[in-house]
Amino acid sequence: MSLLNISILKTDILSMRDFSREEVEEIIHKALELKRTKKTNTQDLNSLSHNKILASLFFENSTRTRESHELAATKLGMNIIGFAGTEGTSVKKGEPLADTARMYAGFEADVVVMRHNLDGAARFVADVVNVPVINAGDGANAHPTQTLLDLMTIFEKFGTIDNLKIAMVGDLKYGRTVHSLLQGLALFRNVEIWAVAPPGLEMPAHCIAEFEERTGTKIFYTPHLQEVLDKAQVLYMTRIQRERFPTSVEGEHEFKKVSGMYELTSQVLTRANPSLCVMHPLPRVKHKLEISLDVDASPRALYFEQARNGVFIRQILISHLLGVQKTKIENKEENGLWRERFVNGQDKKESYLYRLDNGTLIDHLEPGKGPLVHSLLGLERLQTTVVQALNIASTKYGRKDVLAIHNMRLTPRQLWKIALVSERASVNFIEDKRVVQKGTVILPRVLERLLLCQNVNCVTRPEHFEHAPSKFIVEQDKPLRLRCYYCERTCGQEDVELLK
Amino acid sequence: MSLLNISILKTDILSMRDFSREEVEEIIHKALELKRTKKTNTQDLNSLSHNKILASLFFENSTRTRESHELAATKLGMNIIGFAGTEGTSVKKGEPLADTARMYAGFEADVVVMRHNLDGAARFVADVVNVPVINAGDGANAHPTQTLLDLMTIFEKFGTIDNLKIAMVGDLKYGRTVHSLLQGLALFRNVEIWAVAPPGLEMPAHCIAEFEERTGTKIFYTPHLQEVLDKAQVLYMTRIQRERFPTSVEGEHEFKKVSGMYELTSQVLTRANPSLCVMHPLPRVKHKLEISLDVDASPRALYFEQARNGVFIRQILISHLLGVQKTKIENKEENGLWRERFVNGQDKKESYLYRLDNGTLIDHLEPGKGPLVHSLLGLERLQTTVVQALNIASTKYGRKDVLAIHNMRLTPRQLWKIALVSERASVNFIEDKRVVQKGTVILPRVLERLLLCQNVNCVTRPEHFEHAPSKFIVEQDKPLRLRCYYCERTCGQEDVELLK
Amino acid sequence: MSLLNISILKTDILSMRDFSREEVEEIIHKALELKRTKKTNTQDLNSLSHNKILASLFFENSTRTRESHELAATKLGMNIIGFAGTEGTSVKKGEPLADTARMYAGFEADVVVMRHNLDGAARFVADVVNVPVINAGDGANAHPTQTLLDLMTIFEKFGTIDNLKIAMVGDLKYGRTVHSLLQGLALFRNVEIWAVAPPGLEMPAHCIAEFEERTGTKIFYTPHLQEVLDKAQVLYMTRIQRERFPTSVEGEHEFKKVSGMYELTSQVLTRANPSLCVMHPLPRVKHKLEISLDVDASPRALYFEQARNGVFIRQILISHLLGVQKTKIENKEENGLWRERFVNGQDKKESYLYRLDNGTLIDHLEPGKGPLVHSLLGLERLQTTVVQALNIASTKYGRKDVLAIHNMRLTPRQLWKIALVSERASVNFIEDKRVVQKGTVILPRVLERLLLCQNVNCVTRPEHFEHAPSKFIVEQDKPLRLRCYYCERTCGQEDVELLK
Repeated sequence: MSLLNISILKTDILSMRDFSREEVEEIIHKALELKRTKKTNTQDLNSLSHNKILASLFFENSTRTRESHELAATKLGMNIIGFAGTEGTSVKKGEPLADTARMYAGFEADVVVMRHNLDGAARFVADVVNVPVINAGDGANAHPTQTLLDLMTIFEKFGTIDNLKIAMVGDLKYGRTVHSLLQGLALFRNVEIWAVAPPGLEMPAHCIAEFEERTGTKIFYTPHLQEVLDKAQVLYMTRIQRERFPTSVEGEHEFKKVSGMYELTSQVLTRANPSLCVMHPLPRVKHKLEISLDVDASPRALYFEQARNGVFIRQILISHLLGVQKTKIENKEENGLWRERFVNGQDKKESYLYRLDNGTLIDHLEPGKGPLVHSLLGLERLQTTVVQALNIASTKYGRKDVLAIHNMRLTPRQLWKIALVSERASVNFIEDKRVVQKGTVILPRVLERLLLCQNVNCVTRPEHFEHAPSKFIVEQDKPLRLRCYYCERTCGQEDVELLK
Repeated sequence: MSLLNISILKTDILSMRDFSREEVEEIIHKALELKRTKKTNTQDLNSLSHNKILASLFFENSTRTRESHELAATKLGMNIIGFAGTEGTSVKKGEPLADTARMYAGFEADVVVMRHNLDGAARFVADVVNVPVINAGDGANAHPTQTLLDLMTIFEKFGTIDNLKIAMVGDLKYGRTVHSLLQGLALFRNVEIWAVAPPGLEMPAHCIAEFEERTGTKIFYTPHLQEVLDKAQVLYMTRIQRERFPTSVEGEHEFKKVSGMYELTSQVLTRANPSLCVMHPLPRVKHKLEISLDVDASPRALYFEQARNGVFIRQILISHLLGVQKTKIENKEENGLWRERFVNGQDKKESYLYRLDNGTLIDHLEPGKGPLVHSLLGLERLQTTVVQALNIASTKYGRKDVLAIHNMRLTPRQLWKIALVSERASVNFIEDKRVVQKGTVILPRVLERLLLCQNVNCVTRPEHFEHAPSKFIVEQDKPLRLRCYYCERTCGQEDVELLK
Repeated sequence: MSLLNISILKTDILSMRDFSREEVEEIIHKALELKRTKKTNTQDLNSLSHNKILASLFFENSTRTRESHELAATKLGMNIIGFAGTEGTSVKKGEPLADTARMYAGFEADVVVMRHNLDGAARFVADVVNVPVINAGDGANAHPTQTLLDLMTIFEKFGTIDNLKIAMVGDLKYGRTVHSLLQGLALFRNVEIWAVAPPGLEMPAHCIAEFEERTGTKIFYTPHLQEVLDKAQVLYMTRIQRERFPTSVEGEHEFKKVSGMYELTSQVLTRANPSLCVMHPLPRVKHKLEISLDVDASPRALYFEQARNGVFIRQILISHLLGVQKTKIENKEENGLWRERFVNGQDKKESYLYRLDNGTLIDHLEPGKGPLVHSLLGLERLQTTVVQALNIASTKYGRKDVLAIHNMRLTPRQLWKIALVSERASVNFIEDKRVVQKGTVILPRVLERLLLCQNVNCVTRPEHFEHAPSKFIVEQDKPLRLRCYYCERTCGQEDVELLK
């Protein structure tokens, strides 16, 4: 059993949402063990990884993340191919992401690490190639290796992550790092979070909701750093980005005010909880240091150690991925199509009303949705006989629309479309004037090529020409909650936009 | 005898024009053998190449070609130095290509692989440094390693290249790849070529002429893909480049029309020859896919395998070059100066006519070329006595110009200049009123520093300041056909422009 | 004892000013030995350096210098991390230099080699990280490895550096290379230097002064190359940079005139000293070659060999640095504060004049400097009682200013400020109406955070936001000569600008 081996089954490292607490703990423990014993043991472990190939595909460059992956691979005796920024590559000529990734897979890369500007790009590539993929940042979505090294650093300092008080400070709106960290912290028990952000840069509501739902713990928020200084054990500082503010004089003024709110100096820290430690994903910005240089020498400052820990985490992850066998998982539709209702034979009244001898009767549509469903199902094009009964009386709902489609049994995809736009709809299949099946549609676990993701930066959006198929996970039926499989953005029924 | 060793004698890989059929076959066989046996054998073979150095000089970047050369070298255990794009290098400061190459040779590079925007750049470097050079693309001229991997892929699929029916589709005018491939295919027997291109992007006449002349086989051309679909066995698709069309609305329209002509989909392929396979040098462009993604999974699609084959071809080539000893070949003038005619002693009439006792008489010049030759030979500057008899009667040609140069015997370079501008000229050396030698000039095999290459992108053009000497191969005497030694462009007498 | 080991104690390679003649000689000898014996021995020596890490941080790119460092490291079996140009790195996001360097040190780099646009950047990094640093060029300041390879090349050719006649030709004003070389040559005996430069590009006065002071030998200067051709043994050519001249037509004309002055051709060299050799740091510029290509084949041409020697020098330097233990040197203030004068008890007259019972009396200030000193010491802010006696009669100097500061003893930093702005000032500490101490201030060897460096490109300048502390070496007391510890620029009293 090798030092670097971990027992988890992941074949890609794509998002903190994929990890269990046990998996995170095992990775941290292995990384700390490697850090403690490093030099000698690394040599021994090269047998597995020696001369293997890391494809390092940084469509957006990055010093720290790229270098620490490449260094981790180098220490494992691997060779590195790839690019740092797309200047002069075939990406600039318009090569689809999938083709670039497939090329490197064809070159027998053993692991791919990639950063890309589009949300969901890494998971898309993981679907396309038969090589393990590490997500080193996909647009505004995820950055799981950063979170793993953050958690390692916290654990290394405090011996635990449970029960800690952690303040996140600065730009909590756009900072991918803190969003990912919040998902990681949600795996642990009783972690208290303060979200300290200036007006306009607060933590997004969906991040807060997800954390609170998963942990049952409330997040506190305040714009005032001093409110948390004497309580927090970890101060996770982030960079406030000048480019988020208007370029005008007012913008400059606003930026200065906001960034000045969180200038952490030795002086400020004298008022802090004695056990408080300072973290930062780096880089900090020299023109306006959010952590002043006089903090660097303090034992509270963990940020350089934090960057250093990244190499160990990545050695563990790459080493793990070299040992896995990636197999295509078939997308099986295991759940049924129907929530069946009892069919008590012929329902004379209704079959009479719409005069439907054979076909499909869509009942209980919200008033006004009849024509919409008619259009979504493409019934005009098929020249099917359809009777629309609109805004008629319903004993159950007051008013309803009903569609009677003659001589046609709807396909599963058509049924799903109905369920996506109507929560109330029930469907009756009629044969020879009898209702033979009746019920409400159950959405499958995965919806493919049905919906347009509403995140304009999602890799599946047609305007990016990446030809990534739309794919949604149905997280909840009623009320409907979908999550884009690639960019991980959730949407409810009000956001549904069906693909043409 | 090593697996990777090939027996050919090439010390540089510069152009398909340099290769024999036997050499191409041996390279393909070795590459296929390597592909079959790879991992284990590569290890063994590292002894020769281990710690050798590849200088990878990409004056223009390229993902696929650069990466596969570097990966090939890495697999051979070599180290890599060089650059991908010239941003920030001394090339940007104006360093001559020859100096850059010499620097890397001085750093003890064992093989140089290079891509450059100027035609002939690779052969120029091969002349300048004592290190084997691989041409990874020189301007619009050649890309021989691409052709070798294309031929390997065809051979791998069909077990032969002879007798195949191959359609090249798309931009056949600017596509360096298809020009190089045509040269490669010319080595094989009975290959039928269809050139499928939209109006304005047809295969250049000189490429067609060269193929037809070498093989005796006609190339068929058509703008219509459907005409070849049921016949071709290989469909070699290429990218139609947006930048070849005007940026206007009409240009956009024109581009769309043209690129839409060749959109290869699964649907289109249902009408194709069952044995037809699809190749593409890649990248394809996501905004307008000439091969739609649904073709990728088809067994007809060879383009990803094609890219992958590049690594094996390049391992063979680099490995071969590591074993060669490059020696400077002296440029010997083996052919004589004269096609002598019988001198029947004193020709009274002529020597009388021009009153030439001693010197050179240039006879039979086309009317009007007398003053031109006078000027080309620089006779004004020498203040030699010259008698020009212009547009006089000739028994042989009707009219002619004659020059009588007193007391001077022309040098070989002066004689060649005459032969370059006049097909008819004959020269008489006269001593003591007698014609002592008489004949027409024979051009040497190589003309150095005499002519200006008419290809404005040639590495020898003075406006590029590369200080590469002009050098032409005399392929044919009458009618005159010269080929630039570097950029491989041919020219006839009408294109001749002598250097000042 | 390893072949590559040298016995010098340097833990960083930052400036030729740090080197002794013995150290330079040892490096040259080892590099020549390595060159002679190379291949086999390098293998043996890998044990120390194998798998060690070179961080190659080129904030400004460079082909020759970067490649030869990386190649040297590769030959030692090391791994390389870093960047070539800052495009797409966190440097572009505004990361302070110190943070970038610390990150790479945290990644366990064993040696850092760096080029940076700011003067003093390398020494600043060497102060900040606990890893040996090689300066591969810091702004217009130093480039010591270039000088070492230049000296190696000269020594290799002539077997000595003493007694040689060396002409430096071209742009001697902006050429960092020649300034560094001059410092290196100053270590040797009886070297005659000709500085051949066009008007406006002459060697700066401070470079000349430093050389002449250290060696006692005069530098000759002339704009005319022909004056030195028959005497010089080494012709060190440099590139005249087009960008130094205005972009106007006159600028172009001026540039052409100047660069044309030093066009070295085979023809020109026929008039040269038979033993003369030609060197050039390269690149030369193809649009206007200062050394024409026909010189390349001459045995006089050393410039390609010179570039090649760089690899050996850098192998020696890197190998040496891998063996050193870098320890922080404490900045001890070993010299006293005072040059004491005899205190003959109570000085009635003065204590009466200013009515100072207890406090500090600053005497003998140059007339007009009283208010300046008052302001510099920040006495307004402290609301101290101060009596200023301005422009009063002095037996010693004619006129003087005097300051009597009540009830306050000045700190060392305050005393140093006085010494920096006044050469004449003497200070008296008065207790209970008695002068208890009296004297002139002695400046310490190092002045930290007191002065603003007048070199606008210095890494310490606040406008660069690198947060490098101001630090000056006091080279000479009276007249005052300070040298910036980082950018190595000297300044005198007239340049002193105290930090706020």
